[in-house]
Amino acid sequence: MSEGVFTANNLWILVATVLVFIMHLGFASLEAGFVRKKNTVNILFKNCMIIAIGLITYYAVGYNLMYPGTNVGGWFAFSGFGLAFPEGLAEAYANGNFEAYGDGGYTYWTEFIFQAMFAATCATIVSGAVAERMKLNAFLVFATLFVAICYPITGFWKWGLGWLNALEVPFYDFAGSTLVHAVGGWGALAGIILLGARKGKYTKNGIKPIPGHNLPLAAIGVFMLWFGWFGFNGGSVLSADAVGVSLVFVTTCLAAAGGAIGAFFTSYALFKSHDLSMVLNGILGGLVGITAGADLMSPGEAIIIGAIAGVIIPFAVVFFDRIRLDDPVGATSVHLVCGIWGTLAVGLFGSKAGLAQLLSQLTGTVAVGLFTFAFAFGVIYLLKITMGIRVTEEEEMKGLDMAEHDMEAYQESEATPVYRMAMMD
Amino acid sequence: MSEGVFTANNLWILVATVLVFIMHLGFASLEAGFVRKKNTVNILFKNCMIIAIGLITYYAVGYNLMYPGTNVGGWFAFSGFGLAFPEGLAEAYANGNFEAYGDGGYTYWTEFIFQAMFAATCATIVSGAVAERMKLNAFLVFATLFVAICYPITGFWKWGLGWLNALEVPFYDFAGSTLVHAVGGWGALAGIILLGARKGKYTKNGIKPIPGHNLPLAAIGVFMLWFGWFGFNGGSVLSADAVGVSLVFVTTCLAAAGGAIGAFFTSYALFKSHDLSMVLNGILGGLVGITAGADLMSPGEAIIIGAIAGVIIPFAVVFFDRIRLDDPVGATSVHLVCGIWGTLAVGLFGSKAGLAQLLSQLTGTVAVGLFTFAFAFGVIYLLKITMGIRVTEEEEMKGLDMAEHDMEAYQESEATPVYRMAMMD
Amino acid sequence: MSEGVFTANNLWILVATVLVFIMHLGFASLEAGFVRKKNTVNILFKNCMIIAIGLITYYAVGYNLMYPGTNVGGWFAFSGFGLAFPEGLAEAYANGNFEAYGDGGYTYWTEFIFQAMFAATCATIVSGAVAERMKLNAFLVFATLFVAICYPITGFWKWGLGWLNALEVPFYDFAGSTLVHAVGGWGALAGIILLGARKGKYTKNGIKPIPGHNLPLAAIGVFMLWFGWFGFNGGSVLSADAVGVSLVFVTTCLAAAGGAIGAFFTSYALFKSHDLSMVLNGILGGLVGITAGADLMSPGEAIIIGAIAGVIIPFAVVFFDRIRLDDPVGATSVHLVCGIWGTLAVGLFGSKAGLAQLLSQLTGTVAVGLFTFAFAFGVIYLLKITMGIRVTEEEEMKGLDMAEHDMEAYQESEATPVYRMAMMD
Repeated sequence: MSEGVFTANNLWILVATVLVFIMHLGFASLEAGFVRKKNTVNILFKNCMIIAIGLITYYAVGYNLMYPGTNVGGWFAFSGFGLAFPEGLAEAYANGNFEAYGDGGYTYWTEFIFQAMFAATCATIVSGAVAERMKLNAFLVFATLFVAICYPITGFWKWGLGWLNALEVPFYDFAGSTLVHAVGGWGALAGIILLGARKGKYTKNGIKPIPGHNLPLAAIGVFMLWFGWFGFNGGSVLSADAVGVSLVFVTTCLAAAGGAIGAFFTSYALFKSHDLSMVLNGILGGLVGITAGADLMSPGEAIIIGAIAGVIIPFAVVFFDRIRLDDPVGATSVHLVCGIWGTLAVGLFGSKAGLAQLLSQLTGTVAVGLFTFAFAFGVIYLLKITMGIRVTEEEEMKGLDMAEHDMEAYQESEATPVYRMAMMD
Repeated sequence: MSEGVFTANNLWILVATVLVFIMHLGFASLEAGFVRKKNTVNILFKNCMIIAIGLITYYAVGYNLMYPGTNVGGWFAFSGFGLAFPEGLAEAYANGNFEAYGDGGYTYWTEFIFQAMFAATCATIVSGAVAERMKLNAFLVFATLFVAICYPITGFWKWGLGWLNALEVPFYDFAGSTLVHAVGGWGALAGIILLGARKGKYTKNGIKPIPGHNLPLAAIGVFMLWFGWFGFNGGSVLSADAVGVSLVFVTTCLAAAGGAIGAFFTSYALFKSHDLSMVLNGILGGLVGITAGADLMSPGEAIIIGAIAGVIIPFAVVFFDRIRLDDPVGATSVHLVCGIWGTLAVGLFGSKAGLAQLLSQLTGTVAVGLFTFAFAFGVIYLLKITMGIRVTEEEEMKGLDMAEHDMEAYQESEATPVYRMAMMD
Repeated sequence: MSEGVFTANNLWILVATVLVFIMHLGFASLEAGFVRKKNTVNILFKNCMIIAIGLITYYAVGYNLMYPGTNVGGWFAFSGFGLAFPEGLAEAYANGNFEAYGDGGYTYWTEFIFQAMFAATCATIVSGAVAERMKLNAFLVFATLFVAICYPITGFWKWGLGWLNALEVPFYDFAGSTLVHAVGGWGALAGIILLGARKGKYTKNGIKPIPGHNLPLAAIGVFMLWFGWFGFNGGSVLSADAVGVSLVFVTTCLAAAGGAIGAFFTSYALFKSHDLSMVLNGILGGLVGITAGADLMSPGEAIIIGAIAGVIIPFAVVFFDRIRLDDPVGATSVHLVCGIWGTLAVGLFGSKAGLAQLLSQLTGTVAVGLFTFAFAFGVIYLLKITMGIRVTEEEEMKGLDMAEHDMEAYQESEATPVYRMAMMD
């Protein structure tokens, strides 16, 4: 590999890192837009802390749980705390021996920071689902354990070259329909089961919609997530390979577009109105759906996978409401249901399609799902019986912004009357 | 070309694609900020659908109408539906034969996705002008036809190597002052003529200003558009050529800055106040103005072109109001008027300046304008006499958010009173 | 250097330019979110004008004050007005002689536009601190002089190879903890001393908190600033060197994360609540703190530097309030205090740590601080006794949006009643 190619490869993974980073703004905006005004500061606060916690725990322990090196295999491995530039690497790079570290397309630091940006994502997915009623401290403890331990272990099974990668027909998950999105979705599911619904959501008289307080924020969030997904999927090529990355850009965008179209028609058929939140979640569903096989699909197949995800979204949202699992932002529909769909789609469409692959995809889906759900359920259950996970009824009523933060997200105070100005001096 | 250079070239066009993509968030925010609160969901919905429709129609038909290959010319050409990686190309790339596809700076997929991001832009320009009164379904049908047919045909005339490119002194439009912005602007003009003004805008007692509901959103939109313009103009170099791209960055930024300064002084002279919406549109005017010749101008010329665009903006806004053409966001002033200005500026400034070039620029401006306006007017007229293009007076009154979407963009609901919480269970 | 490496180097600095550009949206959002509703248009207007003024003055004079070429030294130098591609350079690049211009990693245009984006930043820092009471025109005059003259001179001392770079143990400031952030912070300090506090902030009955009007805007701002910091610090490597840039990404992100954690615990300890604005400023403090030594620190040291910055933030905010210096957005705490901290940290941590380095860092801090504070104080004082710098009490009361711009940032007007619609025709 020439220095020019190595530099370009590494540069692309760094740019992709920047793009995945801004997905955290996407999640923060989306979730803030979809909750009630009185819980806005709380959701923003959570999303700021999650990225901080995610980066530091991934530095402290996560990275070495997930990518312990080459001489491992199986279910679990660990190569020590912290992070250190491997000895001899700097010299190797300086001598143009760019393959010295793994596949050689990027440096040790690049790999860490790109993967660290992914790690925090799954905790963010949970934060939206448990919004408006979960105690802040309990959530932060859960997020720390989820990112530090749970995400790296299942990630190791495949991306760390563990047992899912060693199956006869290896489980395939290009950029994380299962390993990131469904993992986040399973955590969300455990959370909303243990928390229960928001007060007033499911009543004797039926399901009461609780609309989000700021749809422009939600729309900004979705555009930012799509924007970041160019790095999420495009960076998962793990090099700047021209054909590889450009195909992934095409499939990713066309699936998102298909998701919008699918959700547009389905939600109109179901609800007889043009529901913006469905189209927004349809776009996200399409993106989650293509993520497992973005490098395997033709453009036409990408549109179909995305469109099916878009069709799934309104049904999934209605389904979770029917079984009284309250998810204020639709995270389980988008990340869990479409994450599973995208994982299975690898067995149905594209260059790896086939029964053996489909069974492998099912194996991975079930195994990762069982482990993650059990972990998340266990941790949240322990938190429930110890520190408690749900705010009091009174706190929920006045909103988490005042209850947990003593702040309001918006101040209406207009011009100050003259007589009050005088009194202030 | 070495693999390193090819990889860097391709990488830059992909990064530019990401930047042009986020211009759709820019348009969505800008337009949402400039309309009334009651029409916010509608404009966000349109902008989500436009990017989806744009990508899929450009995949289905647009790309092959615009870039049908090398052996064509003249007024119209088409190379079939859909998209397929040309045979033999993968092998050519693998063998280092990077010139195999066209100029060789990027892959087939890269060209498609970069161009697809441009295509949706012109429909977005229209959406702002017709906001607050056009029926959603009529607009979506128009947008589909506009992106699928109209934009690719005039694009082909120049960028697909059609007749405008074959003039003795070829028409020049580096990144689309005419082919993207004026095209969108002509569509907008046709739309607002056929729709008529918003109720209450032009009264017996004069022109009633209808201020936008959220100026921070509008400002976010303009910053995002400028951000995306680095890719729009910079990517139009069609390689990562160091001198070429960096000069385009300089001219683009200085023209935007010139536009802000020009609009600052002009709007203060005209209105005796510091009008934020004028400065925001001045920045956009400067960007549109430099787009046709961003690679031909010196930094000083870029400032002049941008500043003139900034001076034009307030006059154009007043002009359209005087002739009672109601454009809620100023899209015709920014994209049509400054698009024409930028196209003509290629004949007046920079390395191609001269009478022959100026005449060629005029030819392109008039030809593209006639075709686009006729197409848009015809389609919208047909929609008007069939499905109707304007919402009812009652719907306009209550706002398109409730009328078309049964949703409101903002929910004011504060803390829920305790007694109501109790009743909900 | 091969063409591939040169192209990749240049490309990275251009991408970094785009990222630094969007920091201006970050500042605009952050400051808009932290001021009162009635001053929102004003702060957005300032931030639009600052980027325009910054680019044009840096083109006209700033760049040639700061980087006058190789044959200079000492305290001051200037190489003429305007900008021109040096003769012979185009030919040199074409011949593959990429080292022709300076270090050779990028073109002349690239260097200009990357540095120009930095220049406007320090004026932006001031705009937040003087918000809600400074006259628009006075601020714009100050910003012009600050960017055109003050920032380039102290920048020249180090980055233009002036006297601070020529110390026996050269002063070190990798990406501008002092040269950008503290410079902006000293300007802010001069401004708030000369302006005085907002009416009603410090009363006989104590300090009255004046909360920001829109915390989602503030959070968007912080995420955008972090996003841009990848370019601010990463681009300061001045090449795409794989190990160099990726290490800077790691230290930058971990310091930001450390800042969030530090501010989280400290503000809870001090105020017994989870204060979102402290965590947001903690992230920024961590970023400012790592900026001087982002290329020198290990990941662990980066976390420590960031965490200390995060601990500093709440104390600094309280300190400035105690001495009755009113800074609505906390710019002095973030940029001045953490800028000094980051500069000194180079002498305490990382590969340059040592007493001699620490003394050199102190020298630079004091020298730059004295010059900048004197310049800013002098200019603002002259403006105070000539055109005036503070709006009238009545204008402050009704808000700068109505007083200076005759506009409001938000329009509440909901659906128009039917009878009024009829009357409008």
